[in-house]
Amino acid sequence: MNTETVSNYPDARTALAAKTRLVPDFPSEGIVFQDLTPVLADGAAFRTIVTEMAQVCSVFDVDVVAGLDARGFLLGSAVALELGVGVLALRKAGKLPPPVLRQEYDLEYGTAALEIPSEGLDLRGRRVLLVDDVLATGGTLVAARSLLEDAGAQIAGVAVALEVQELEGAKRLGDLPLYVVSREQ
Amino acid sequence: MNTETVSNYPDARTALAAKTRLVPDFPSEGIVFQDLTPVLADGAAFRTIVTEMAQVCSVFDVDVVAGLDARGFLLGSAVALELGVGVLALRKAGKLPPPVLRQEYDLEYGTAALEIPSEGLDLRGRRVLLVDDVLATGGTLVAARSLLEDAGAQIAGVAVALEVQELEGAKRLGDLPLYVVSREQ
Repeated sequence: MNTETVSNYPDARTALAAKTRLVPDFPSEGIVFQDLTPVLADGAAFRTIVTEMAQVCSVFDVDVVAGLDARGFLLGSAVALELGVGVLALRKAGKLPPPVLRQEYDLEYGTAALEIPSEGLDLRGRRVLLVDDVLATGGTLVAARSLLEDAGAQIAGVAVALEVQELEGAKRLGDLPLYVVSREQ
Repeated sequence: MNTETVSNYPDARTALAAKTRLVPDFPSEGIVFQDLTPVLADGAAFRTIVTEMAQVCSVFDVDVVAGLDARGFLLGSAVALELGVGVLALRKAGKLPPPVLRQEYDLEYGTAALEIPSEGLDLRGRRVLLVDDVLATGGTLVAARSLLEDAGAQIAGVAVALEVQELEGAKRLGDLPLYVVSREQ
């Protein structure tokens, strides 16, 4: 989408680095926020990242991709298409009509929840790939895992574009296979 | 994702009808809410709808797909991949770090807004396909059009899975080409 575009990138990490919008001191001083909007809006960068993510995660042999509301929908949906499976939207609380399955989780201040419909889906025995844009503390991904396991699914792996390593979210995922396009030191 | 799955559907409309979760009297009495979660989570239904939407919309010759936060991300991202372009996330207010371009619009009670980054993207002269799940009153899509036109883009067309015809949203889109998978009478 920039005026300087390239038709292809050698790998997903390069595509991500080339197009990420860096916003210094957001949401607080000393933090550099990484906005992936321009990455995904760039056809070549988007395709490179989705293709690599799907290729790496194809070994997990999944039946469905679960995308986390809302930015996880963007990569999750495209990776699902590339893998030839469907995309399950894990919604923030209050978005779905009842009946739903619900998993609460803690935020820095207060709590939040993820929901899926409890009718019309049969996740028993299904192998799921969890997709989100950024792995930070891992709280949302851990809640997603609980929600899906309660529905009878098995988490086969997790894929994210970015990992903020100092927040140690990967530890909270335990022994789940994790694919990260780019790690922030 | 249901135990009874088929490997393929003859067309997008059939796929949609087969897997939509119908929730009577939601959000108010007499309304039947159509939850597309199980449609998108079904690999065959998802692929059928995305492929058909991309095929129909390929005539619009777009440079990028814009998906509406949040459910529009699910179809928008996959359609973008299928068309070989990027997906631009049109975010609800307050999700993006500054600086942003912003377009407000009216809700039944109060107002809402859509935002995109005002740096790191160059939309001037770009042809955009707007994608969302449901066309109801059309208020959000009209706001999306204004936002993108203010950024210098040109809306080449609109694609949605469902249209609630009695709300007459299509009229508000004026002369924009509109592709609808299934119309609700």
